[in-house]
Amino acid sequence: MRVAHLGDSSAGRELVEGMMGAGHDVVKLEDPGDLREFQALVVGVGDARLEATVEMLESFVFDGLIVIHTCLSRGVQVLDPLEAHGVVAVAAAPFAQKRWAISALDELGETIASLIVGEMGATTVEYRDTERPGLAARVYYARMLRRLARHADLFEDEPPELLGNVDSEEIVAAFYAIEEPGLRRSYLESARRLGEVELREELELWALQEENK
Amino acid sequence: MRVAHLGDSSAGRELVEGMMGAGHDVVKLEDPGDLREFQALVVGVGDARLEATVEMLESFVFDGLIVIHTCLSRGVQVLDPLEAHGVVAVAAAPFAQKRWAISALDELGETIASLIVGEMGATTVEYRDTERPGLAARVYYARMLRRLARHADLFEDEPPELLGNVDSEEIVAAFYAIEEPGLRRSYLESARRLGEVELREELELWALQEENK
Repeated sequence: MRVAHLGDSSAGRELVEGMMGAGHDVVKLEDPGDLREFQALVVGVGDARLEATVEMLESFVFDGLIVIHTCLSRGVQVLDPLEAHGVVAVAAAPFAQKRWAISALDELGETIASLIVGEMGATTVEYRDTERPGLAARVYYARMLRRLARHADLFEDEPPELLGNVDSEEIVAAFYAIEEPGLRRSYLESARRLGEVELREELELWALQEENK
Repeated sequence: MRVAHLGDSSAGRELVEGMMGAGHDVVKLEDPGDLREFQALVVGVGDARLEATVEMLESFVFDGLIVIHTCLSRGVQVLDPLEAHGVVAVAAAPFAQKRWAISALDELGETIASLIVGEMGATTVEYRDTERPGLAARVYYARMLRRLARHADLFEDEPPELLGNVDSEEIVAAFYAIEEPGLRRSYLESARRLGEVELREELELWALQEENK
């Protein structure tokens, strides 16, 4: 399959790397006008830019194109404007070791997601759109904590791949789905500390501002 | 070897369970007057009660008795009053998967510690007394974070034994060795959150009070 890759989120990169490993031909999409050359498009942009990206893509997609976004905190319905043009719409994001959270609009989308994820040696778990923001917050929180733990002690034999990447802008976007006050507080403090130890200034600053609200 | 076990710290329990697994005969010490029946004594009490326990033991120990305390945040010198009575003094505490932090007053103590820890299938790392408080703080902080991560997501396949026990009173005692402000803040917030999710009220309360100082 010829696959176009848009965006630079770590989840998007993880998907296209897995697809390349499975033998697909992945190309960075420089010009959306080139989309006709591809069978599938990976939209690897973060939560905050997903709507605008979908809007931009609307005039370029076509019937039968597979469109996969990789944002854990968002369901598949954000792709509705593209689905109206006949694309097969899927949300697929890694949320644990070799497990991908899948949301699709129909059975064809689910089947295609299972095939692609299966080729990468991973399995899918289906989530409803409404479950995804809370799932993303829990997953990012746990990843922040594990990264902090790893930074604090250099003694554990924990394999680094268990750590998981987590983009600062996704940490920020997922925060607002949390309602429990204790978890909100701990999430912010973890983000602030992760900002300090991993030199993510924008994350540290955001957490500080939220704490002082 | 006949081994007496005093105290109920989790590190102490881990040591005597390992020694029992290696075939030693471990008995809970009910009356310090019975110490003469033993070749070794495991002092499994926390940081805050270590001095008082040593003082209490002073009139019961004897030449050649092996005395091991299991408090990670304390060096071996806290056992000096017993060493004056001819005991072999050792500090031995688990700080990572199958690794024990060892401090001893002499080569005999080091050798005995290596033998006991080796029998349990673990290895020793020697630490100077002055290094132990900072080591304990980092280790407890990392354990708190991993326990919180585990609580937040139930998806990871992380083996539970990687989590590590950590007593609330040891978390409290080790905190005061931390000088870096960011780490102090994150340590307190982690303790507070761990108190919330693991229902350790005294820990939560302590963290709250420290945060408001």
